[in-house]
Amino acid sequence: MEFTSESIVRLYDTDAAGFHFYGAQFRFAHEALEDFLEHIGLPIAKTIRDRGVLFPVVHAEADYRAPLAVGDRLAVRVVVRALGDRSFSMGYRFFLADGREAGSVATVHASVSAATGASCPLPVEVRTAFAPYLTTGD
Amino acid sequence: MEFTSESIVRLYDTDAAGFHFYGAQFRFAHEALEDFLEHIGLPIAKTIRDRGVLFPVVHAEADYRAPLAVGDRLAVRVVVRALGDRSFSMGYRFFLADGREAGSVATVHASVSAATGASCPLPVEVRTAFAPYLTTGD
Amino acid sequence: MEFTSESIVRLYDTDAAGFHFYGAQFRFAHEALEDFLEHIGLPIAKTIRDRGVLFPVVHAEADYRAPLAVGDRLAVRVVVRALGDRSFSMGYRFFLADGREAGSVATVHASVSAATGASCPLPVEVRTAFAPYLTTGD
Amino acid sequence: MEFTSESIVRLYDTDAAGFHFYGAQFRFAHEALEDFLEHIGLPIAKTIRDRGVLFPVVHAEADYRAPLAVGDRLAVRVVVRALGDRSFSMGYRFFLADGREAGSVATVHASVSAATGASCPLPVEVRTAFAPYLTTGD
Repeated sequence: MEFTSESIVRLYDTDAAGFHFYGAQFRFAHEALEDFLEHIGLPIAKTIRDRGVLFPVVHAEADYRAPLAVGDRLAVRVVVRALGDRSFSMGYRFFLADGREAGSVATVHASVSAATGASCPLPVEVRTAFAPYLTTGD
Repeated sequence: MEFTSESIVRLYDTDAAGFHFYGAQFRFAHEALEDFLEHIGLPIAKTIRDRGVLFPVVHAEADYRAPLAVGDRLAVRVVVRALGDRSFSMGYRFFLADGREAGSVATVHASVSAATGASCPLPVEVRTAFAPYLTTGD
Repeated sequence: MEFTSESIVRLYDTDAAGFHFYGAQFRFAHEALEDFLEHIGLPIAKTIRDRGVLFPVVHAEADYRAPLAVGDRLAVRVVVRALGDRSFSMGYRFFLADGREAGSVATVHASVSAATGASCPLPVEVRTAFAPYLTTGD
Repeated sequence: MEFTSESIVRLYDTDAAGFHFYGAQFRFAHEALEDFLEHIGLPIAKTIRDRGVLFPVVHAEADYRAPLAVGDRLAVRVVVRALGDRSFSMGYRFFLADGREAGSVATVHASVSAATGASCPLPVEVRTAFAPYLTTGD
């Protein structure tokens, strides 16, 4: 299963060289993650507050395939790439209105206790809610 | 008395229209505030942790007088504009290398308890450290 | 007439002090402006490209009335505050889901030639499209 | 050879979960790149203007090894990881004041013509200036 979110390229995402700042793509990925978490019933603020668990990024990477311009609307396809005992991996692909893929992001998140900062098992509710979106192929 | 900090205009501060995003000037002001607080012996992390007091911005304004370009080095002159019982006001002026003023920012900060979020008196150490920088003229 | 846009407070808009960075409110205002321009048929990229006119901010100010938390959805009410020969002013008010006003932003934009950077008259199409949203009261 | 820059973790780099937003590490890397380019005599604005060449990021990745807090000063060690005919790769490692490595970033940049957006050879001055910093080991 796949979740699709939307991001809009804003003037502040672009730079004087006429390209978008490469960090912007991580902003789009993070927005899509928050939208995904809300969609599956685990809004980020509530999850932090109720379960005492944080999911900091321990690895992130991005590829850039097409330049983006102000006003471009990106369809962001979100999948779960891996579900470990104490971590999970997400994949994001960004598509322009004409169907071209503008780029992609992959992130690995650890599960850590908000109280101690130590690694902790992924809560079972998170595993259950993420499982249908686990996609290991392309 | 006046404190002078430095900011550099980065590629991500500019936009495709060739101007810097106007929000960037608030980034420069905030950096200068953190540098100022460290300079007067009240680094922001330690102040939040030790005194249990936060200083959220309740009003901010900015004027823009000259365009900025990537690589411009700004001298940021920081002064204290007002010291109230439960608030303070800061002034920031940004100068280009050739002496022209690129713009200015003014911020008003409330003093609130980190525990309750309620308004609280400005700690005496903050008043004492800020007092020499109080400048009501231009 | 009034245009209403929506912004969502993201994790990256908040800071370790538990407040949102005050610069984030200008990000919400700018997003609302781009949405407004698209709504009235003047998308920002096309306007820059076709009319050779830029609208840099020459003054900006913001007031903060309520703390914002991750996941908060803000209704952003956009009005035109003034329409000059070579400038215009915008007003933005941010409302939480429970109806409380979280804050407001006001911006003044100059009309300048993209080619020369010099002040130029506001294009008539812009005046015409903005006029219905001119609101001088509260 | 290695170039060392410095970045300071700002309040706006942190989030309500008490971690820094992972995108911030790319901001530190980009600042270090601009500082590096200036150090080797190729300031970014001048390079774009004079040589008509842009170096957009086509791949970026980051690892995170230690949490960062407001006020942390990071020593950023910059090396050139690869020098191709039409691309180059950079490596950035972030060290806390106590010597611990907080994380790392790697970026791959294409060389493209500012006029056409098409791939173009890396200018010889860029190759010459980068060569001493080429470091393929750890």
